[in-house]
Amino acid sequence: MSNKIKKLAVLTSGGDSPGMNAAIRSVVRTCSYHNIECLGVYRGYEGLIDGDFEELTARSVKGIINKGGTFLKSARSNRFRTEEGRKQAYQKLNEVGADGLVVIGGDGSFTGAMIFNQEFGFPVMGIPGTIDNDIYGTTHTLGFDTALNTVVDAIDKIRDTASSHNRLFFIEVMGRDVGHIALNAGIAGGAEEILIPEENLGLDRLVDSLNRSRTSGKSSSIVVVAEGDKIGKNIFELKDYVDQNMEGYDVRVSVLGHMQRGGAPSCFDRVLASRMGVKAVESLLKGESNYMVGLLNGKMELTPIEKAIKGKTKINLELLRVSDIMST
Amino acid sequence: MSNKIKKLAVLTSGGDSPGMNAAIRSVVRTCSYHNIECLGVYRGYEGLIDGDFEELTARSVKGIINKGGTFLKSARSNRFRTEEGRKQAYQKLNEVGADGLVVIGGDGSFTGAMIFNQEFGFPVMGIPGTIDNDIYGTTHTLGFDTALNTVVDAIDKIRDTASSHNRLFFIEVMGRDVGHIALNAGIAGGAEEILIPEENLGLDRLVDSLNRSRTSGKSSSIVVVAEGDKIGKNIFELKDYVDQNMEGYDVRVSVLGHMQRGGAPSCFDRVLASRMGVKAVESLLKGESNYMVGLLNGKMELTPIEKAIKGKTKINLELLRVSDIMST
Amino acid sequence: MSNKIKKLAVLTSGGDSPGMNAAIRSVVRTCSYHNIECLGVYRGYEGLIDGDFEELTARSVKGIINKGGTFLKSARSNRFRTEEGRKQAYQKLNEVGADGLVVIGGDGSFTGAMIFNQEFGFPVMGIPGTIDNDIYGTTHTLGFDTALNTVVDAIDKIRDTASSHNRLFFIEVMGRDVGHIALNAGIAGGAEEILIPEENLGLDRLVDSLNRSRTSGKSSSIVVVAEGDKIGKNIFELKDYVDQNMEGYDVRVSVLGHMQRGGAPSCFDRVLASRMGVKAVESLLKGESNYMVGLLNGKMELTPIEKAIKGKTKINLELLRVSDIMST
Amino acid sequence: MSNKIKKLAVLTSGGDSPGMNAAIRSVVRTCSYHNIECLGVYRGYEGLIDGDFEELTARSVKGIINKGGTFLKSARSNRFRTEEGRKQAYQKLNEVGADGLVVIGGDGSFTGAMIFNQEFGFPVMGIPGTIDNDIYGTTHTLGFDTALNTVVDAIDKIRDTASSHNRLFFIEVMGRDVGHIALNAGIAGGAEEILIPEENLGLDRLVDSLNRSRTSGKSSSIVVVAEGDKIGKNIFELKDYVDQNMEGYDVRVSVLGHMQRGGAPSCFDRVLASRMGVKAVESLLKGESNYMVGLLNGKMELTPIEKAIKGKTKINLELLRVSDIMST
Repeated sequence: MSNKIKKLAVLTSGGDSPGMNAAIRSVVRTCSYHNIECLGVYRGYEGLIDGDFEELTARSVKGIINKGGTFLKSARSNRFRTEEGRKQAYQKLNEVGADGLVVIGGDGSFTGAMIFNQEFGFPVMGIPGTIDNDIYGTTHTLGFDTALNTVVDAIDKIRDTASSHNRLFFIEVMGRDVGHIALNAGIAGGAEEILIPEENLGLDRLVDSLNRSRTSGKSSSIVVVAEGDKIGKNIFELKDYVDQNMEGYDVRVSVLGHMQRGGAPSCFDRVLASRMGVKAVESLLKGESNYMVGLLNGKMELTPIEKAIKGKTKINLELLRVSDIMST
Repeated sequence: MSNKIKKLAVLTSGGDSPGMNAAIRSVVRTCSYHNIECLGVYRGYEGLIDGDFEELTARSVKGIINKGGTFLKSARSNRFRTEEGRKQAYQKLNEVGADGLVVIGGDGSFTGAMIFNQEFGFPVMGIPGTIDNDIYGTTHTLGFDTALNTVVDAIDKIRDTASSHNRLFFIEVMGRDVGHIALNAGIAGGAEEILIPEENLGLDRLVDSLNRSRTSGKSSSIVVVAEGDKIGKNIFELKDYVDQNMEGYDVRVSVLGHMQRGGAPSCFDRVLASRMGVKAVESLLKGESNYMVGLLNGKMELTPIEKAIKGKTKINLELLRVSDIMST
Repeated sequence: MSNKIKKLAVLTSGGDSPGMNAAIRSVVRTCSYHNIECLGVYRGYEGLIDGDFEELTARSVKGIINKGGTFLKSARSNRFRTEEGRKQAYQKLNEVGADGLVVIGGDGSFTGAMIFNQEFGFPVMGIPGTIDNDIYGTTHTLGFDTALNTVVDAIDKIRDTASSHNRLFFIEVMGRDVGHIALNAGIAGGAEEILIPEENLGLDRLVDSLNRSRTSGKSSSIVVVAEGDKIGKNIFELKDYVDQNMEGYDVRVSVLGHMQRGGAPSCFDRVLASRMGVKAVESLLKGESNYMVGLLNGKMELTPIEKAIKGKTKINLELLRVSDIMST
Repeated sequence: MSNKIKKLAVLTSGGDSPGMNAAIRSVVRTCSYHNIECLGVYRGYEGLIDGDFEELTARSVKGIINKGGTFLKSARSNRFRTEEGRKQAYQKLNEVGADGLVVIGGDGSFTGAMIFNQEFGFPVMGIPGTIDNDIYGTTHTLGFDTALNTVVDAIDKIRDTASSHNRLFFIEVMGRDVGHIALNAGIAGGAEEILIPEENLGLDRLVDSLNRSRTSGKSSSIVVVAEGDKIGKNIFELKDYVDQNMEGYDVRVSVLGHMQRGGAPSCFDRVLASRMGVKAVESLLKGESNYMVGLLNGKMELTPIEKAIKGKTKINLELLRVSDIMST
């Protein structure tokens, strides 16, 4: 592979997600495979500014493919939003001879990378790491599949107790402004209703629908609510409304919270991370820059990082319909 | 085994817990082994009053040992708190020829059973089923071990993200008025602090201790908080106090909620449930009544049900000390 | 939806896989949604011949989306390979007024369905249910994703003990004649080598490669072997060869076996099952027949069942390369 | 605490088990709590002889409580069986100023420790780490509870496929010469028969019993076989015998293998490990030596190490009876 790159840096930024460690491992080993040096940058852009680097070898990333979180740690960096901060980061990279950067993170992290590339012409490549699956240019972000399994496992447990008591549970799941986690985990968890930002049923229709469920013989119900959903002001107010407007259920709320971000990555996420790391490094070695690697139609593809940031992911309408049919 | 009992009834009552199905299975199969009929009662004391019974055979309880919840369903019954309700329950049991009752539940359920026995001399036997481990007369209630593993798994996941971000997490776990879940899961989850109702550190000492952790080099921390703990008014106020009184951490809250009550029971809980079911049925067959079966020093023992209700479980002081040493 | 179908039958056939219950549930509920009756057929084609049917409603499939196996049971049927047997099956379907059949299974099951369709013009639709992912016309068969997670979890556990003891483990995984499980789970499990039927390294190169791993500082190694791989006569002979031809490792074998076929389906498999069930029923209602539903480029697509049987799935060459790079 | 010990060494030896890392962490942190230095010894007695030591602080054992295996690695040491080897080990310990040794392992490891203590008067303390639960002086060895959950999870998965196909499965589990894993996991897995070394049914009674199960309406069966059981020469011959002597079942074998030794430790094992580490260190600090710490009646107790080695654990007869009743 012909190229002039000799030393890559890799960092994780923004909210962490399962598979980030596997992606770092892949970046490092792909560098090793191509006889390129690799520097791990601690604490995302903060560490980039501070020069908090560590040389990583194939052996130094052993035993991490199955670990949640990111051993390079992540952070949000206000300093990197300033020209001053980015300039300092550029100097630090120059000092150590790094000539390419792989950024594992979400859209905020990619925006930083894009600006950094625009200002200094420094080669950057993005790997989409977030459980929310809200990045354009890939059907799956790193950690999405794992988070889905975590959520579904929690719903299964809650259903045990819901169906022992004829209860209605509102379960809030993560996903920022999009409903991907809610829609998939809701179908898989056998939810009677799934509330997502992309579709607003309205409170009355929700209550109607739950009443129909109730009278059709369901003795317990699960409603999965995306954190970005706006049907109620928040899930506790949603609960109160339903409590006051329907009978026969004992209504409860469960906010799954940060456990959704952790845990050993699924097989899918580990394989995806491994593929993305290879693609990111080899693309940089081929002279590509300012792209995000993604999974499209089962293949590794590059999307201009600006498009990845500005594009909108769409909810799969077929899934919405499947969800409706399943809650018959 | 000499006795006059010909037909037993079994019900689950109060909050459900993993292992209840395994206990029902054991009661039914022990009846079958001794050629006794067994009736399942649906919806706890509610179903007892309504005569909501189903004859259960060894085959009708197959495939349930690994299921969370209770297929007989559980409910709280206000009617059973009235003499009227209990009288009706007694009549229903008489109508179907049942001459003994196994109650799987917590102290509230046992109180109902005890009064029922006092009023009608009807033989009853209790099996302690609750995740909270707050019943006197057994070192382990059914579901406690499973809930501990569920909680620890969630803490492990949260730690992944906590340590990726230098965060301090307050994690609220169940346990009603006692700290058994918090103390055990806190030690196993590697918590820096464990807040339980039985021991009140005070907010200042908590902040001091977290500050010491911070300065000793810990970059993230987990504080496990029992739901019954009173150090703050609630966990969100606790978070706010700490947020305002210490620096360097991004503080978050996670309330684990009802997923703690569900899930496939652990090996321990399945074996315990099987043992308890055998002991409960065989004790009734021997003419014993008004007892709770429990695990004491590794053996199945009977405790008078009144003692089980009124007795207090104590927190294991050795564990408190171990927790202190581990957070060195 | 205009059509003349009034009553569908659904069966599971061949080796079972996680997600089959979720697919049955989806078929039943999609029928219910379209006001079509649905019959469950027990024991695959055996039950079809014996008329072992049960009417299924939306309520009768509750609580099964998360269960492994198939509650309709599966069986291999020699009788259905005879004209006599198929004729009898046809009569049984006619007797109960069924006018369409959904077959959930692998290529053997599809062959039966195709011949049945050819002989009697009876509308059939296939849903690919097998952990092996060896069916043409879908990127994922039902159960493949779940099996991968089961295998990876087992590899993680084995690695714990391998790395505590400087051991080399040969781990045999399922997959019949193809290496999809081995390749994906091998990458995700961090295997040093992956032996699949599609690529024969040769024993000498295997030993060379393991020796290189050893001298490069790896103190333990995992080799994942597809059951269909032919590098040794079987995995125990493979172990013996390596034992005799390299030093420094204590070599062990683990055959993961049938646990790979069970377990609660992953979120992915539950969603896939739900989608496939909808697609299969609605395709029959639209008058389509003799197809298999599959996932292609993220969408539900139909493939002529004959093509699904005769087509060959290919190993993803990119994954082979990723595997090589990762074991650097 | 008054004592003269200033520096402890800790090692893991023999087969690894989940909870060993948690025990090392506890030993290290208890040393830290008492201002004692702590040395980790790599590769068990081999490292002791080679002086392969590393100073461990409270911070160096963070993040390991939930990891299977042992980061200090384990090994069997022939050299330590020689006086020469032990002498060298003693010298190495003297050179670094260590004046006490904690050995985490099984009876073989304890024998080494005892002889070492006899020869040099060097203070030693044992922590029972093995999944087999075959050590006298503790009701639970470290790793036993975790292994049980691993085995039960595998049995649950196998049952999914067994009951989909009317199959009889023989499942071999670990346990060396004792049946503790088989008996507990067999009850929890709902096994129809459990074959353990402590009780020999005989092949004819086994076949009789399976036939009774079959005719009583069970369509699939699980037989759990302890690896130390001698009813057949091995499990495959056992399968062949049953295959030839009963009808109606498709008989299969699954040998669970080394995955039983790995995995994240259960809550129980983490708490037990933490308690044992504290007890071991504090007992040495109090001047005790040549003991094993164990869990007896819920409390940490010391047993003379010779007694721990020579004593026999007994199978719980109550469990055997429960198993019989449950397979009614």
